Amino acid sequence: MNSVFRTIALIGKYQSLDIAESLLALGSYLKSRDVNVLLEEGTAAMVGANGYDVASYHQIGEQADLAVVLGGDGSMLTAARQLVESGVPLIGVNKGRLGFMTDLANETMLESMAQLLEGKYTSEERMLLDAEVLRDGKRASQFLVLNELVLNKGDLGRMIEFSVSIDGEFVYNQRSDGIIVATPTGSTAYALSANGPILHPSVAGIALVPLCPHALSNRPITVSENSHIEIMMMPPYEARVHADGQDYFDLVAGDQLIITRSSRSIRFIHPLDYSYFAMLRQKLHWSENPRSY
Amino acid sequence: MNSVFRTIALIGKYQSLDIAESLLALGSYLKSRDVNVLLEEGTAAMVGANGYDVASYHQIGEQADLAVVLGGDGSMLTAARQLVESGVPLIGVNKGRLGFMTDLANETMLESMAQLLEGKYTSEERMLLDAEVLRDGKRASQFLVLNELVLNKGDLGRMIEFSVSIDGEFVYNQRSDGIIVATPTGSTAYALSANGPILHPSVAGIALVPLCPHALSNRPITVSENSHIEIMMMPPYEARVHADGQDYFDLVAGDQLIITRSSRSIRFIHPLDYSYFAMLRQKLHWSENPRSY
Amino acid sequence: MNSVFRTIALIGKYQSLDIAESLLALGSYLKSRDVNVLLEEGTAAMVGANGYDVASYHQIGEQADLAVVLGGDGSMLTAARQLVESGVPLIGVNKGRLGFMTDLANETMLESMAQLLEGKYTSEERMLLDAEVLRDGKRASQFLVLNELVLNKGDLGRMIEFSVSIDGEFVYNQRSDGIIVATPTGSTAYALSANGPILHPSVAGIALVPLCPHALSNRPITVSENSHIEIMMMPPYEARVHADGQDYFDLVAGDQLIITRSSRSIRFIHPLDYSYFAMLRQKLHWSENPRSY
Amino acid sequence: MNSVFRTIALIGKYQSLDIAESLLALGSYLKSRDVNVLLEEGTAAMVGANGYDVASYHQIGEQADLAVVLGGDGSMLTAARQLVESGVPLIGVNKGRLGFMTDLANETMLESMAQLLEGKYTSEERMLLDAEVLRDGKRASQFLVLNELVLNKGDLGRMIEFSVSIDGEFVYNQRSDGIIVATPTGSTAYALSANGPILHPSVAGIALVPLCPHALSNRPITVSENSHIEIMMMPPYEARVHADGQDYFDLVAGDQLIITRSSRSIRFIHPLDYSYFAMLRQKLHWSENPRSY
Repeated sequence: MNSVFRTIALIGKYQSLDIAESLLALGSYLKSRDVNVLLEEGTAAMVGANGYDVASYHQIGEQADLAVVLGGDGSMLTAARQLVESGVPLIGVNKGRLGFMTDLANETMLESMAQLLEGKYTSEERMLLDAEVLRDGKRASQFLVLNELVLNKGDLGRMIEFSVSIDGEFVYNQRSDGIIVATPTGSTAYALSANGPILHPSVAGIALVPLCPHALSNRPITVSENSHIEIMMMPPYEARVHADGQDYFDLVAGDQLIITRSSRSIRFIHPLDYSYFAMLRQKLHWSENPRSY
Repeated sequence: MNSVFRTIALIGKYQSLDIAESLLALGSYLKSRDVNVLLEEGTAAMVGANGYDVASYHQIGEQADLAVVLGGDGSMLTAARQLVESGVPLIGVNKGRLGFMTDLANETMLESMAQLLEGKYTSEERMLLDAEVLRDGKRASQFLVLNELVLNKGDLGRMIEFSVSIDGEFVYNQRSDGIIVATPTGSTAYALSANGPILHPSVAGIALVPLCPHALSNRPITVSENSHIEIMMMPPYEARVHADGQDYFDLVAGDQLIITRSSRSIRFIHPLDYSYFAMLRQKLHWSENPRSY
Repeated sequence: MNSVFRTIALIGKYQSLDIAESLLALGSYLKSRDVNVLLEEGTAAMVGANGYDVASYHQIGEQADLAVVLGGDGSMLTAARQLVESGVPLIGVNKGRLGFMTDLANETMLESMAQLLEGKYTSEERMLLDAEVLRDGKRASQFLVLNELVLNKGDLGRMIEFSVSIDGEFVYNQRSDGIIVATPTGSTAYALSANGPILHPSVAGIALVPLCPHALSNRPITVSENSHIEIMMMPPYEARVHADGQDYFDLVAGDQLIITRSSRSIRFIHPLDYSYFAMLRQKLHWSENPRSY
Repeated sequence: MNSVFRTIALIGKYQSLDIAESLLALGSYLKSRDVNVLLEEGTAAMVGANGYDVASYHQIGEQADLAVVLGGDGSMLTAARQLVESGVPLIGVNKGRLGFMTDLANETMLESMAQLLEGKYTSEERMLLDAEVLRDGKRASQFLVLNELVLNKGDLGRMIEFSVSIDGEFVYNQRSDGIIVATPTGSTAYALSANGPILHPSVAGIALVPLCPHALSNRPITVSENSHIEIMMMPPYEARVHADGQDYFDLVAGDQLIITRSSRSIRFIHPLDYSYFAMLRQKLHWSENPRSY
């Protein structure tokens, strides 16, 4: 039977040689199944082309039917952000323990891949956020966000002040170390460390999670995915905004950060036995049998 | 101009004489505006009929176009649960500080009412939960829930154990004092005291908030409003389930609690200057101007 | 070499037959070392006397130099409370994973015991609390507390109100599900589930941890071990007070609960390689090497 | 009657002209009571000497019997750190709402001062921490700390890793945004925003409060004031350490931060009606009468 995916791109963890063996084993297997294999150019620079077609993210976006990422959640995040415009779906193979976004275990990678090639998988859309920085009313920067946007105080040892409005309605002025604006996907990442709420991917919401707020009653709040969120730096405070821990921009007093749901989204492929809650249980050490702990 | 509401029911806080004056002032005003006024029978028993038509909740449901509740969030909760079948919308007048559900201040009640009668208001649907208890596969009890369902250990001084599944997918076995299953409306009530997440009413989600969980990593999780939530008491544990702090039922080992979104909902009427976030700021002491605290 | 402990009592987990084998292995070993072995009478009733002298807790208190508890933290708690008057030190053998109070692993029990018999151990005092309930000024009940005193709402589905004073100074009126008053030993037990602070056993403090407080700013507070803590039920509220999850008493409106450091204490024996922090790491899944998680 | 304090130094909030009036009123009053008044030189540069003796912090340390600070907790912190070597006690006058450390209200400042001059006050020692940074075994920096030491990630948008040991015993490797090491005085400042425990000043403990820890079970822990705390930066991580939000030093991989109780302490003077808990209630909005909220 032919693979339902004709062209598959392989993307390895950034500068991580220890994925080489798995990557080449996976490449060989896919070739044996008559799949066209593209090797992401950064990955090829690291492990060698080994006879595979080398492709930029742009080319992967144009040609691939699926991107397989070997690495952790960070690698998945990087690849997802590169491929968002193209709509190429992604699946991850994790070297160690499974990640929040990397469903496949390294040991059973080939068996899992065989299932996928036969069309035995589910697919899931994950929402993204569009963010832009306005300075004097003009766009000074913009970001696409899969996990979270973090506004924080940078290297100053003191709190910052900013005001938050949603759909033109004033929410609060906040004095804190900063704030996290997270998607459901991001709700199990950094936001969770800051006592943010876990949002199942099917919840159409955006979480606002304060970082060390001065007001003890300032709790995380989840708003609709359709919200128009506006954060303004109160003079004389400055801050830095980080997108998915990968890009950043420095805000000055008076800058506005506008956050809305993106019209784009990311598609993840899951094996048929994928369970969001099983993944949470494993990652968060939730007990399957509370008697035993 | 005639009132857009032809018949309005007045409902006072349970056994609370100090709302009598406001209630009668409101009744007189409505009469002067040619509105038919119904006085809820329990309220009439307390303050006297005073020439008003006395009506049961059932009759209010059949005849009223609007129910005005004088009291706090608890009174609002009681009336909303009584009127859910009828679809009569509600609005609350709070004697002291505004409540999460009671929008109108006592001092400006008549001015606010004048606006409503002219059709100057917004209306908002709030979701409800249906819950039922299954014992040996048969329905043993059922509840309609506006705020939250609380499963707790009753008067035992030790933790209980139960398993949670969502849409047939196993979530976890939990050892804790219990769990709160809250609507967005309930997310600012008891669930907030248990470190639950605030959900804006426009978020289509249900929050599961553990009470003193044994596993420290057991965080609140918000799932889709379309979730089929099933909680099963692990033998030999027993528990009590409370609906909106007003009804309860005792569960024995093996009982199942099934929770889904109700097909019914509650409609709240708001004055045009109503702001959900302003209400939160006031109730939670969030600062409008962080410089001053 | 003779054992530094001439008489050792063996105490098994309540109604738990699966400790029988370990218990008898330990008994045999101790006999082979010329130690007098006492078998606690409840334990003997369960596993059989097997030729050992059977003793009540009172007799153990009079005759034993050491009590060895086979079971979990609950068994340790029970035995410690029974032996507090006698001053007999305790050590625990845990069947499964080590407990907060049970230092010895079942698999290496005999090697560990050999070390103890040679005097290779450390000993540690743990503070206790005395609690008494005053009704109309007269003592209505009293407790000795190793872990924590819990005041809670019993089986009512609503909050209770009580006032707290320390050394005659008013602290607050609290509306909540209740409050935990914990020793450092208890700070890693139930109090931790309620977001209480971990107190190292060498910290001379008592933790007050609110249960689901209505006021979001009501945080846990640690006061000096010399504090005279007074909690009074505000009419018309009633509550139940639990001591170490083993005893309880029902409070009525106006009852006062007085809590002070006890003049008595418990002595735990630890093997030389005991580490409080290693135990915490294991129990709380703190990582030894954060790279690997 | 002569003042029990012969020489009193007045210290104003840094570059804050609006304390000028209060400061001069206080100076006049003290002169009228035959007290020698010293005006701190930075304060004099701002408001003018106005006929008072101008003195450096060093001179205040040598000559004053009491320092009165007009400002907020930040001003109090600055002055306390400057005067710690001298042992001069401090009291604060707060312009707005009372602070955690500034006991006297501006409106009743003169009446309060009259009481103090008559010897009607209590005095309280607050512990300090000594911190030093070791690089390649040599001291690279040192700090004296009244509130807290904060180790954080600086302006990097990602977590840092460090290991913590206490009294030579390994506690954990932590991956987080950083850690706060707080005194009881500091436990109600920044540490409280990070979910740290409130420690009454009479509790002889030091709180370790993680900032957004990656491991969800990583809770704050309070250790004895006699602890020798050692924090080491894990390569390749770097961080910044802040002392009381006023000084900082940049740590490189392998640097060690050593924290112990200081042999020095700060003495605060309180009016006779001072109540620690009353101050907490006010600052944290704890209710005196829960019925009313």
